[in-house]
Amino acid sequence: MELGFVGLGKMGLNMVRRLRGGGHAIVAFDRNGDAVKEAEKEGATAAASLDELVDRLKAPRVVWVMVPAGPATEEVVGALVSLLEDGDVIVDGGNSNYKDTIRRHDEAAKAGVRLLDAGTSGGVWGLKNGYCLMVGGEKDAYDAVTPVLKTLAPENGLLYCGPSGSGHYVKMIHNGIEYGMLQAYAEGFEILNASRYDLDLAAISKLWNHGSVVRSWLLELCENVFAKDASLESVDDAVADSGEGRWTIQEAMELDVPAPVLTLSLLTRFRSRQDTSFGGKVIAALRNEFGGHAFGKASGR
Amino acid sequence: MELGFVGLGKMGLNMVRRLRGGGHAIVAFDRNGDAVKEAEKEGATAAASLDELVDRLKAPRVVWVMVPAGPATEEVVGALVSLLEDGDVIVDGGNSNYKDTIRRHDEAAKAGVRLLDAGTSGGVWGLKNGYCLMVGGEKDAYDAVTPVLKTLAPENGLLYCGPSGSGHYVKMIHNGIEYGMLQAYAEGFEILNASRYDLDLAAISKLWNHGSVVRSWLLELCENVFAKDASLESVDDAVADSGEGRWTIQEAMELDVPAPVLTLSLLTRFRSRQDTSFGGKVIAALRNEFGGHAFGKASGR
Repeated sequence: MELGFVGLGKMGLNMVRRLRGGGHAIVAFDRNGDAVKEAEKEGATAAASLDELVDRLKAPRVVWVMVPAGPATEEVVGALVSLLEDGDVIVDGGNSNYKDTIRRHDEAAKAGVRLLDAGTSGGVWGLKNGYCLMVGGEKDAYDAVTPVLKTLAPENGLLYCGPSGSGHYVKMIHNGIEYGMLQAYAEGFEILNASRYDLDLAAISKLWNHGSVVRSWLLELCENVFAKDASLESVDDAVADSGEGRWTIQEAMELDVPAPVLTLSLLTRFRSRQDTSFGGKVIAALRNEFGGHAFGKASGR
Repeated sequence: MELGFVGLGKMGLNMVRRLRGGGHAIVAFDRNGDAVKEAEKEGATAAASLDELVDRLKAPRVVWVMVPAGPATEEVVGALVSLLEDGDVIVDGGNSNYKDTIRRHDEAAKAGVRLLDAGTSGGVWGLKNGYCLMVGGEKDAYDAVTPVLKTLAPENGLLYCGPSGSGHYVKMIHNGIEYGMLQAYAEGFEILNASRYDLDLAAISKLWNHGSVVRSWLLELCENVFAKDASLESVDDAVADSGEGRWTIQEAMELDVPAPVLTLSLLTRFRSRQDTSFGGKVIAALRNEFGGHAFGKASGR
């Protein structure tokens, strides 16, 4: 089918490639003209603005939005709602906060425009493997966009989750779980690396993916990581977080659900980005104060 | 090849079945005569005692021990060392603490008997899928037992990890990681279950296994679990722990490696087995003392 595509970053451009592979006609726009040229190479029609993108699509239109969560999504969805007509559909494929999505959905509905939320997982591997899609919003809008969703997703990798926001909600929790899994692997491999044995972490990652209880796609990526550089000397240990982890914790607090490990996985990332810990200084200073304990890493145990 | 097999519990009996399927000749012993009869049905030769098992094997002998870690393994390995001869090999396939393994290995070596440690993962699914095997000990003993190991393991599911104890060490960390992964999924699904949306947890588990970043074998088991009883009303929420999780934390402490999430995953299991929390009472009593705050769940936020 025909659709507009806004946002041609790393994720967006690969999705355009996969959609073109599925035979869909794409009108593409990005603020970055070079990215639009890349999309043209994939056979997409270039648009120089959102207005032009909307003009080039036949009603009822479908526009996929793949821009960063927050102000960028707010701006693009807002502009599209004012340009689109009754019966058109916007799909927000980014990592928006589900509460923002519900608000935008209700705003769009006033103009007769339906906003679907499509939580999208798969990263740079999605081009080849397909993107796991968690979709919320009106069911009839979902049905109308299904040809596009089916091209993007692998078999069984597409679910209509429920009303507006539910797709982004499920994606948010997905990412929260991912934080915990990553931290669990991280701690395990750090112990293995520090052990008395000279262990081959790439070989162990590969081994565990064959018949063990902890096998997973993340562990398959561990094979690649340790095969490239088993000591990880080339890797910076500061870990970013991009929103969904902390929203998961906020949601747990709103619901009074204990989520200690997901929370601690997030907090561990905060610590990873600190050069020094003021809290650590407080403890070291107090130990010195009450017990005369020495300062510094050399003071050890 | 020919081998003795001691310990015909759920794991052991399935391993005998898989070994028989691979054409190996088994002499089997268990304190439970009914289990020995089950092994006989699989074509194993019954032994009425460890002495008889050793007598029925031709030197150099191989004896696989699959009994609970701790006193049972201590007793069986000790008895076998006194019965076996120079050049024989014992394989401890259980979840022994790697430090016990090193001690037993060194004791066995005095009698010329080599003890291999084979960390074994795969649970009840191992019969069909194969058991992921992490093996430590003398390399020549490993080579001698390789035909048996290859039958038990799936392709690529077998690794020689290094000297004595390294197999059990890698298995210990594997289980520690498993604690963290389980807890991460648990918290994510608890939030989904408590959410404002009416979400289909079986469908979401299945979805996430197709193209998402958190796909894993444990998540495939989630599909089964939620398909059987999405509300989990039939499941008791007390979670046992069988040793390797806490050994992982002890090891982290010995090595000064921060492993907060694995530790908290273990502690969460302790809480799950308490009927009431004395610590919780301390906090409730103090809040009442300093602020007159009410007791009881109904007091809520």
